[in-house]
Amino acid sequence: MKKKIAVLPGDGIGREIASGAVAVLQAAGKRFGHEFEIEYADIGGAAIDSHNTPLPGSTLELARNSDAVLLGAVGGPKWDNLPSAERPERGLLAIRKELGLFANLRPIPSFQKLVQSSPLKPEIAGNVNMLIVRELTGGLYFGKPSERRGENNDIVVDTLQYTRAEIERIVVKAFEFAAGRGGKLTSVDKANVLESSRMWREIVNEKAADYPNVTVDHMYVDAAAMKLISSPGQFDVIVTENLFGDILSDEASMITGSLGMLPSASLSESGIGLYEPVHGSAPDIAGQNKANPLAMILSAALMLKYSFNMREEGEAIERAVQSVLNDGYCTQDLQMEGSTVVGTDKMIELVTQRVANGSDVATDTIVYM
Amino acid sequence: MKKKIAVLPGDGIGREIASGAVAVLQAAGKRFGHEFEIEYADIGGAAIDSHNTPLPGSTLELARNSDAVLLGAVGGPKWDNLPSAERPERGLLAIRKELGLFANLRPIPSFQKLVQSSPLKPEIAGNVNMLIVRELTGGLYFGKPSERRGENNDIVVDTLQYTRAEIERIVVKAFEFAAGRGGKLTSVDKANVLESSRMWREIVNEKAADYPNVTVDHMYVDAAAMKLISSPGQFDVIVTENLFGDILSDEASMITGSLGMLPSASLSESGIGLYEPVHGSAPDIAGQNKANPLAMILSAALMLKYSFNMREEGEAIERAVQSVLNDGYCTQDLQMEGSTVVGTDKMIELVTQRVANGSDVATDTIVYM
Ligand SMILES: [Mg+2]
Ligand SMILES: [Mg+2]
Repeated sequence: MKKKIAVLPGDGIGREIASGAVAVLQAAGKRFGHEFEIEYADIGGAAIDSHNTPLPGSTLELARNSDAVLLGAVGGPKWDNLPSAERPERGLLAIRKELGLFANLRPIPSFQKLVQSSPLKPEIAGNVNMLIVRELTGGLYFGKPSERRGENNDIVVDTLQYTRAEIERIVVKAFEFAAGRGGKLTSVDKANVLESSRMWREIVNEKAADYPNVTVDHMYVDAAAMKLISSPGQFDVIVTENLFGDILSDEASMITGSLGMLPSASLSESGIGLYEPVHGSAPDIAGQNKANPLAMILSAALMLKYSFNMREEGEAIERAVQSVLNDGYCTQDLQMEGSTVVGTDKMIELVTQRVANGSDVATDTIVYM
Repeated sequence: MKKKIAVLPGDGIGREIASGAVAVLQAAGKRFGHEFEIEYADIGGAAIDSHNTPLPGSTLELARNSDAVLLGAVGGPKWDNLPSAERPERGLLAIRKELGLFANLRPIPSFQKLVQSSPLKPEIAGNVNMLIVRELTGGLYFGKPSERRGENNDIVVDTLQYTRAEIERIVVKAFEFAAGRGGKLTSVDKANVLESSRMWREIVNEKAADYPNVTVDHMYVDAAAMKLISSPGQFDVIVTENLFGDILSDEASMITGSLGMLPSASLSESGIGLYEPVHGSAPDIAGQNKANPLAMILSAALMLKYSFNMREEGEAIERAVQSVLNDGYCTQDLQMEGSTVVGTDKMIELVTQRVANGSDVATDTIVYM
């Protein structure tokens, strides 16, 4: 197969980790007989420097004309004094909006070698493999009115708004993922209080009829915040609205023990997807061969699976990452006892080699995302 | 001092634990020379049975004519088939509203003896002593409109609304608690997205000028959800709006390792306060001498401190609870290695004795709430 990928490295460690992901992708392409055409463009601070805007039209056009977008990270002290409407982060918000990325996917796996670095006890953190599906374009963060009112501007209002169609498309997406994974969907809402949650719950129950092999649970958001800590192993796919998903996905990101391992995907109805690590641009260690490229590499694996339907290829990358960890290699951000700390380059090389020659023998502890 | 206390045991284990708290209060009154006049009334399912409504007028009147209200817990399978507007839980919502209880306080301490039952690692769970101050009567749970719209009712809207006065009173309350504790206030919002959060943050910064000895931090709600797990020991007082507080206080309740240990307080502007355990009515173990009365007893201690300004008396109860745990006694819900499991009656007796005779010698591990 031939696929065109827009790579937007962004700022800070974004460049190092993006080139790592590209190396791994090219190795997978060679091994499995695909051609990945890579085109680079600027976003964030780099784009402010080169084009005077965090999302240049040329970058957006490239993204639209590609089969998928791979993004590093944006932001850094250099641009911290700009007004908030002109900051690097605006580029991220703008591309999400322009591409209509309504479904944000955050897989939270356990990596056996990293279980000790979780704040949770090993017996709780070691048995997790969930996918959080968050609605990304509606709800309280986007509803109007969002304003001050009254004679003295002493009343303030924000609006949580959803249309039925917006809820349906994210719920259907979550059911599809649940059907392809463990067959369990937990819908998180606050239906005892919010009208929007009651509509959400109705729609989940309606759509459930189309997925007889998926078991559906409803859980209140406050209970979910408890269960994510006390028994995270019970979850398969979680689906929830924008604000709840923001809070719960960040809470759940602590389970794995390092943000440096967590990829994400954002999907649109048109089919285009954007893949990026959960972590930021870490300007303090940029260019020092210290950055952990694994979240970015795992984001590329998600791209193969979610956007190109290349399941075997994506899992080959996931297995390669797992086997490198299992062999005791890690970057300096990871706390692994008795491990060999390697730099960004070496980590990329280790994973690339194993993807290239298939020396990523399956083990009992494979993480499928 | 003479104080009148309305005791509303409610349902399930509510009766057993409420009578335990009363015994402990009477012991404290005797030792410190106070007279606590106790009057009982029904709420919840018990009130539905006796008065055909979950909050009888007579109960509300008693509460209004008392100096404080001590509440057990409401609900049970007997009333589960009632329409939601007539359920026991409505009694709780109604009394909160009628008494104007806008500030919900949830202390989250570490109990050294219980650290092993936390899902967090002992070194993280063992060093916590925070107070979450949650706004309880405004925000998204109460704003209007909360409705379906559009030709086919296919748009849904909820409204997050606050007035300046509503935010000011909760923020001031939180500053007062921070000034009397560790001098650190963390205000949680989502000011990068929500207009209501921007007003919230402005007011916090304004009020900070009146409390020069309190250090103020601002934290986004998604970051707070992470930090509560990864480094809960960093928090002293957290203040936040209703929905964020609902989610974060339940998340934080997992740290201690047992809901059976957590008290709460809800305060009004008029000065009246309602004190109740965080846990529910546990109808499955009601009347079996198995219930853990300690959250209820600690709620009574909070009442002495917060409503009656009886700091020494409240701490005497907290120390008694601590010393009973330290001596290895626990109820069946707590997982303490090498401990003596006792029934509800015996646990109440142990605490009451230590409050009565002052054999609650201070240790290094006292929990001050
Ligand atoms: Mg977030
Ligand atoms: Mg709650």
